Amino acid sequence: MEPAASRPVPSPLTAAAVEALSRLFGDRLRQDAESLTVWGRDWTRSFAVAPSAVVFPNSTDEVVTLVQAARAHGFALVPSGGRTGLSGGAVAPAGEVVVSFDRMNRILELDPAGQLLRCEAGAITQAIQEHAEQHGLFYPVDFASAGSSQIGGNVATNAGGIKVIRYGMTRDWVAGLKVVTGRGEVLDLGRGLVKDNTGYDLRHLFIGSEGTLGLITEVTLRLTRQPAAQQVLVLGLSAFPVVMEVLHAFRQRLEVSAFEFFDAKALAKVLARTGLPAPFAADADTCPYYVLVEVEVSQDADAPLAVFEHCVEQGWVVDGVLSQSEEQARKLWRLREDISETISHWTPYKNDLAVRVARVPEFLAEVDAFVGRHYPDLEVVWFGHIGDGNLHLNILKPEDMPQADFYERCHGASKEIFTMIRRHGGSVSAEHGVGLLKKDYLGYSRSPEEIAYLRAIRTAFDPDGVLNPGKLV
Amino acid sequence: MEPAASRPVPSPLTAAAVEALSRLFGDRLRQDAESLTVWGRDWTRSFAVAPSAVVFPNSTDEVVTLVQAARAHGFALVPSGGRTGLSGGAVAPAGEVVVSFDRMNRILELDPAGQLLRCEAGAITQAIQEHAEQHGLFYPVDFASAGSSQIGGNVATNAGGIKVIRYGMTRDWVAGLKVVTGRGEVLDLGRGLVKDNTGYDLRHLFIGSEGTLGLITEVTLRLTRQPAAQQVLVLGLSAFPVVMEVLHAFRQRLEVSAFEFFDAKALAKVLARTGLPAPFAADADTCPYYVLVEVEVSQDADAPLAVFEHCVEQGWVVDGVLSQSEEQARKLWRLREDISETISHWTPYKNDLAVRVARVPEFLAEVDAFVGRHYPDLEVVWFGHIGDGNLHLNILKPEDMPQADFYERCHGASKEIFTMIRRHGGSVSAEHGVGLLKKDYLGYSRSPEEIAYLRAIRTAFDPDGVLNPGKLV
Repeated sequence: MEPAASRPVPSPLTAAAVEALSRLFGDRLRQDAESLTVWGRDWTRSFAVAPSAVVFPNSTDEVVTLVQAARAHGFALVPSGGRTGLSGGAVAPAGEVVVSFDRMNRILELDPAGQLLRCEAGAITQAIQEHAEQHGLFYPVDFASAGSSQIGGNVATNAGGIKVIRYGMTRDWVAGLKVVTGRGEVLDLGRGLVKDNTGYDLRHLFIGSEGTLGLITEVTLRLTRQPAAQQVLVLGLSAFPVVMEVLHAFRQRLEVSAFEFFDAKALAKVLARTGLPAPFAADADTCPYYVLVEVEVSQDADAPLAVFEHCVEQGWVVDGVLSQSEEQARKLWRLREDISETISHWTPYKNDLAVRVARVPEFLAEVDAFVGRHYPDLEVVWFGHIGDGNLHLNILKPEDMPQADFYERCHGASKEIFTMIRRHGGSVSAEHGVGLLKKDYLGYSRSPEEIAYLRAIRTAFDPDGVLNPGKLV
Repeated sequence: MEPAASRPVPSPLTAAAVEALSRLFGDRLRQDAESLTVWGRDWTRSFAVAPSAVVFPNSTDEVVTLVQAARAHGFALVPSGGRTGLSGGAVAPAGEVVVSFDRMNRILELDPAGQLLRCEAGAITQAIQEHAEQHGLFYPVDFASAGSSQIGGNVATNAGGIKVIRYGMTRDWVAGLKVVTGRGEVLDLGRGLVKDNTGYDLRHLFIGSEGTLGLITEVTLRLTRQPAAQQVLVLGLSAFPVVMEVLHAFRQRLEVSAFEFFDAKALAKVLARTGLPAPFAADADTCPYYVLVEVEVSQDADAPLAVFEHCVEQGWVVDGVLSQSEEQARKLWRLREDISETISHWTPYKNDLAVRVARVPEFLAEVDAFVGRHYPDLEVVWFGHIGDGNLHLNILKPEDMPQADFYERCHGASKEIFTMIRRHGGSVSAEHGVGLLKKDYLGYSRSPEEIAYLRAIRTAFDPDGVLNPGKLV
């Protein structure tokens, strides 16, 4: 039997379908060209955007009725949050009905003793962070788009970010989910319980499911204490492999909140564009790589400096700087945070890769050698959340190369790089998910047996294939 | 179609099956009466124990061949770890072949920079803790049976323990699993990657699956830093509901590593049996409940005392004691740790319940009132991991009541209590799993729709029903 997810999506909507949607949503159904364009896309720009309609539910009940209508009338649904996704998972390319959670944005309750926050799926991540802070608590998952992204989307894509090394992914903070499955059933999973060993944990299936098993309507998040003061170090490494020694030296003695890396090329471009001062005097030969380490200030006030000095004595670190104020810490963070925007000038071809932390040096050397050998005319910039084994490979487009030629050459490189990833047991999509962008490459990270189970699970939850068809698997 | 899991288990083994097992395992196949008794059970004593055989695989490959043989010859498998389970999940009641992981007990590698430890599923939990410690790292999941339990069993039951409030459950520490499914396929899930967003997380399905989806052969665990020094407080509460205020007061200012409670009855019995000194002078009327709080010593050295004083000022805490040495901290922990063994004298009927943390006072009062009203002749003792919303309700058997009568009365009480649990959205098995013991009560914590998905998932991974039939669902 052909898996439900790959059946062709009927489009456009039948008259009966439009009638049903209109009865259900009234003026919260839109079909004008501008709304279709705005709500039919995410942050990617590589895919056609062509939804049939956009609807704005107010409640879980409305979502249930919507799914039932989709099954009855034969149309597909594309759930949409903050539209900040990077793999096309919330793009509607083929006449689907976009389900926007913009109106389901309320924070419902905060339980201080249980350290739980319950909210609708459309609540903005940053609003959640601020609400927690007002109550003396902390929601620790953070990333650049937090001011626009919605928690439902965060959960559906298992969003990561800059604090994963200390706090984990979104997955680690979900205490409960209310979902409407592709069958139109409401499941109340987890329910905020810390401990519940009553069978398979269905909650974790929905986390990272990219809208293919159900529509998330409500989320219960765990919160934690606000962190103590932090200090930031930027260190210049003598060579790349020593990065693991440096990571280990800091992690043994301190609570490491962030451990990011970038190469000398990235730094040079950021300094040129922003006018920020270099962290210390160095050239690309003696200092080919940099790490930014954020650590929690502890009882052991001398520890950051002591670890730094140890790394210098060992010959791992050439030089470095330790922030002495919040202002300085912020400036040092900009050296890392401004990289994406800086290199966007070169419309880079991006890969979001992960290998086990210990394999990072070997893997990076392999990819670097490969690109140097086969694409000597292309400039490569490396940076990323290296404490998690997550590397962002960016290939910069030469000024005079046509866009189409550039992407074709990079696609070819990707296949080789994914083959290396497979050999290292790594991930072809560390953070950004599969969506449309990585669908064809899933086999580089998942075995055929695993993919068969993904399909079986999808069919169980969405037998008619109404949820985000064509995405993920 | 009748779910595979409830098909009757053929027994005893056919001659062909014994032949196949003998060829595969040689003298690592046992069928003598003593081995069958020893390896056919867990820590429960309520269930008949009647396996057909016990086998001791050395490798994942042998487990694959075993599953294929089970499918071909029509016999069932019961995976067995440290045999410390509390719900009969590893009991073989009906002629199954017990698969003991005793011989697959090696720790394979420790990666210090990535803070990962990889081992075979039969590795003893305490051995893992010690190995991590030797490398300056820490595996934080801990519980009474850690000296006997195996990590595969810990993962299959999502073991909890005393440090959940700070470190979470076993689930939160599994970075990778190698499993052999009921189809005989090997899945390498997670692979130690911190970040991998390439489809549904199958790893989390196996965690807590109680041997019904696959046999775990290898585990990759995350490790963390060794904790700093801890201090322990034992506090006497003026009434139960204030426990939430006390919890919140400590969690706001300190890293709380443990938050346990017990009633005055439990304390009196422990003091009587052990001869330990009372933490402070108090009687059951002024101090009906106690909490034990363990906090990490921080820069803010005055904080524990300051929070204690605040709790006294608010009228929540009647009196308390703060440990001044590791020796005193250990003595205070004994007041809580010795409860189980102390009350075993009364062969208690136990329930392992959980509700959301904020609901604990309301729930406990409801159950107390119910038991007081309907079972006034039965003595109830409360204790547990209250910071996680996990309560252990123990009904003590009166000296002169026959065992059978006692259990019948308690079973009746359980149904009522589970109904209350359902009303509160709680769990009928917070830590100990479902196994055989809670199978009939699953509906009190999982909806019919959820249970249908559990069955569908089970059938996908084990279509012939060879893995632990009759357990869980």
